[in-house]
Amino acid sequence: MKNFEFHSPTKIFFGRETQKQVGEIIRGYGFKKVLLHYGKGSIKKIGLYDEVTNALNESKIDFIELGGAQPNPTLNLVKEGIGLCRKENVDIVLVVGGGSAIDSGKLIAVGAANDCDPWLFSMGKKTPKSALPIGTILTLSATGSETSASAVITNEELKLKRGYNSEFNRPLFSILNPELTFTVSPYQTACGIVDIIMHTLERYITMKGNAEVTDRIAEAVLKSTIQAGKVAMENPQDYEARATLMWAGTLSHNGLTGLGRDYYMVCHQIEHEISGMFEEVAHGAGLAVVFPAWAKYAYKYNMERFCQYAVRVWNCEMDYSNPENTAIAGIEATAKYFKEIGMPSSLSEFSITEDSFEEMAEKCTNYGERILPGLIEYGKKEIIDILNLCK
Amino acid sequence: MKNFEFHSPTKIFFGRETQKQVGEIIRGYGFKKVLLHYGKGSIKKIGLYDEVTNALNESKIDFIELGGAQPNPTLNLVKEGIGLCRKENVDIVLVVGGGSAIDSGKLIAVGAANDCDPWLFSMGKKTPKSALPIGTILTLSATGSETSASAVITNEELKLKRGYNSEFNRPLFSILNPELTFTVSPYQTACGIVDIIMHTLERYITMKGNAEVTDRIAEAVLKSTIQAGKVAMENPQDYEARATLMWAGTLSHNGLTGLGRDYYMVCHQIEHEISGMFEEVAHGAGLAVVFPAWAKYAYKYNMERFCQYAVRVWNCEMDYSNPENTAIAGIEATAKYFKEIGMPSSLSEFSITEDSFEEMAEKCTNYGERILPGLIEYGKKEIIDILNLCK
Repeated sequence: MKNFEFHSPTKIFFGRETQKQVGEIIRGYGFKKVLLHYGKGSIKKIGLYDEVTNALNESKIDFIELGGAQPNPTLNLVKEGIGLCRKENVDIVLVVGGGSAIDSGKLIAVGAANDCDPWLFSMGKKTPKSALPIGTILTLSATGSETSASAVITNEELKLKRGYNSEFNRPLFSILNPELTFTVSPYQTACGIVDIIMHTLERYITMKGNAEVTDRIAEAVLKSTIQAGKVAMENPQDYEARATLMWAGTLSHNGLTGLGRDYYMVCHQIEHEISGMFEEVAHGAGLAVVFPAWAKYAYKYNMERFCQYAVRVWNCEMDYSNPENTAIAGIEATAKYFKEIGMPSSLSEFSITEDSFEEMAEKCTNYGERILPGLIEYGKKEIIDILNLCK
Repeated sequence: MKNFEFHSPTKIFFGRETQKQVGEIIRGYGFKKVLLHYGKGSIKKIGLYDEVTNALNESKIDFIELGGAQPNPTLNLVKEGIGLCRKENVDIVLVVGGGSAIDSGKLIAVGAANDCDPWLFSMGKKTPKSALPIGTILTLSATGSETSASAVITNEELKLKRGYNSEFNRPLFSILNPELTFTVSPYQTACGIVDIIMHTLERYITMKGNAEVTDRIAEAVLKSTIQAGKVAMENPQDYEARATLMWAGTLSHNGLTGLGRDYYMVCHQIEHEISGMFEEVAHGAGLAVVFPAWAKYAYKYNMERFCQYAVRVWNCEMDYSNPENTAIAGIEATAKYFKEIGMPSSLSEFSITEDSFEEMAEKCTNYGERILPGLIEYGKKEIIDILNLCK
C-alpha cells in the first residue's frame, strides 16, 4: 500500500425528499446569496425547480439564476456565471443537475474567486488559490462530481475537453435523492452506469500496488453497480436500484476506490478526445467503446490484475494453465454487459472513422507535449492503436 | 436504503514516515499552541515522542504536554487536560496514541470549549456546542476513533464507562503510519482486530434495511481484516497486513459501513459494563466473549442476515433446507477465529462469575431507565441471559 492522503469533506444528505432541506441547510451555514445553476430545464419539467426555489424562499435565501448548462459543459457559460457571481456578491453556488452542470458550477465557483481565465486551470497552467463554496442537488448518477475534486469542461473554440483536480472543487454539501433519477432516460442511465464502473475500474486495474481493503471496496462498488444497473434498466422507478447507483456513483469517484495505489485514467483521457470532437457522443457511451479496446491492448502488461477482476467481479473461473483466457473472459463479460444495457461497442455506430484518429491522438498528447502513464506509456502511436481497436 | 447523513471530514495522511509531517500540517492550519496528549510512555520507548516533538520544534509550534492516558480513559485526567487548555490558551489538541488516548483527547477538546462537567456529555444530559480542533497520530489499529464521532470514557468514582457521539468529536486530521503498530503486542493486536470486526458487524447484522453497497463494503472490510489479522499475528512487522488493519480500522467506524440502515451497538454496550467494572478486561477481549453469546441468543430474529454473513464473509455453504445450520456456522467460524488469534471465549477466563451479572445489567439499562433496541429489545432480563451465555 503506497502512502496516500484522503480528504472527502463533502457532507452528504441522502434519501427521499432531501431536496426540500436545501434552504435550511444553506441557512445553517450562514450563506445569504445563492447562484442557482442548472441545465436545460428538465428540472422544471419534473417539478424540482419549484421545490428548490420554494425551499430557498421559505428559508429567506436570496438567489439569482443561471440555467443552460449542457452535456460537456462549456467555457462561455462558465464565464457568464463568474461575471454574475462577482456582480451580485454571491456567496455560494448551488447546482441542481448532473455532472455537467456541477462541473460548470465548480468552474464558476473557482473562477469567481481567482483573477484569471478559468481555462488556465483546466490546462494545468495555473492553480486556484481559493473558491466560492458549492452545494449540489444531484439528478444523475454518473460522474461522482458531487464529491470529487475534479471538473471537466469543453472549450468550444478549441474543441478541447479537459479535466483538472483541485481540493477547491469539492462541494461543501451534496443532496442525493435517488427519486430524482427516476425520470432519467434508459440511455442516460446506461451512460451513468458505465461512468461509475469506469471510475472504479480505472483505479483498480493498475500496474503496481497491493492494497487489499481498497481492492475489495472497489469490487464492492463494481458488483453493486453491475447488479443494480440491470434492475434500474428494467424498472427505472426501483428505489433500491436507483439508490445503489447513486451512492456507488459517489463512492466511485471520491477517492476511496483508489487509495494506496497509483493510477491514471487513460480511458477517460482518450474518451475526452472523442466526445470533445463529436459532441453527439455521451461520455459514458464513449467509455463503453474505449474500455474493451484499451483492455484488449493492455491486459498483457498486468495479467494478474485482469484475472483478479474477472474472478472476483464477474465470477469467471480461473484458468491456471492459461490465465490469458481468464483475463479475456473478464473483458468480454464487461463488453457484453455494456452492450446489454444498450451501450455502443464501436465508434462506427457514431459514424466516426479513422480519419479523426490522428487529430484525437495529437490532442490527447497535447500535441506531443505529454505521454500518458499507466500500465504502459501511451504516446501518439499507442493511442492510435487503441482507437483502431474501437472502430 | 434508509435516508442518511454522512460526513467524514477528517483529513487522512496515511503511510510510512507520515508522523514527521505533523509540524508542517499543524502550521498549515495556522495553529500555534498545542496540547500534546499521550498515554503511559510507550511512545517514548519507540522513539515516536522524539520524532513528534522534533517535528513540532522544527515548525516552531509551541506545545505543552499531558501524558498518562490509560486504557479505559478516565475522567480525572480529562479534567486536568481541560484546565491546562484553558490556562495555556491551547488552540489544538494533538493526541499521539491509541483509541483510549484519542477519546481522552476528544473529551478534553470538547470540555475546554464548553462550560460544564464533561461527564454530562457522556451521560447524554448535555450536548456540546463547540470544541477545540483535534489531530491524532495513531499507534493502534482498533477503535476507529481517529475519524469517528464517538468518545468513550470511564468515570472512576462511579465505575461507569460511557460513550457518546458528537460531530465535534471528529478529528480535523489523523496521521496513520502502520509502522507505528509493529511493536503492538500480539494480545493488543488481537484485541484491535476484534474491535474492528465488531464495529463493522454491529452495523451489518441488524433487523431491517436493504443497503447493497453498504453491505458489500462492510463485507470488504470484514474479509480484509480477517485475512490481514492472521498475517499480522504471525508476522507483526508485515507492513501490508498492518496497513490493511489500520485502514480497515478507520473505515469500520467512520460511518461508511452502516449507511442506510438502522443499527445499535448492543455488544459494545454490554461489553462496556464488563470492562467498566473489571479494568483488567481489554475492550476487544470483552467483545470477543460477548459476540458469540449475543449471536447465539439473537440469530433467530434475523436468520437471513446471519446466513448472508456466514456465506459472504466466511464462505460457509448455504443450507437451504435448514438455514439455522448456516447461521450457526457463521457464528462458530467467528468464535473460532477469535480463539485462534488468542482471544478469550468466556468470562470465567477473567474469573468473572454470575455474581456480577445483576449489577452489570442494572448499569447497562441505566438502572431501568433504558431498554436497548436492536434485533429485539434488551432489558435487564435479556442482558442477564446473554451474560449467562458468556460464562
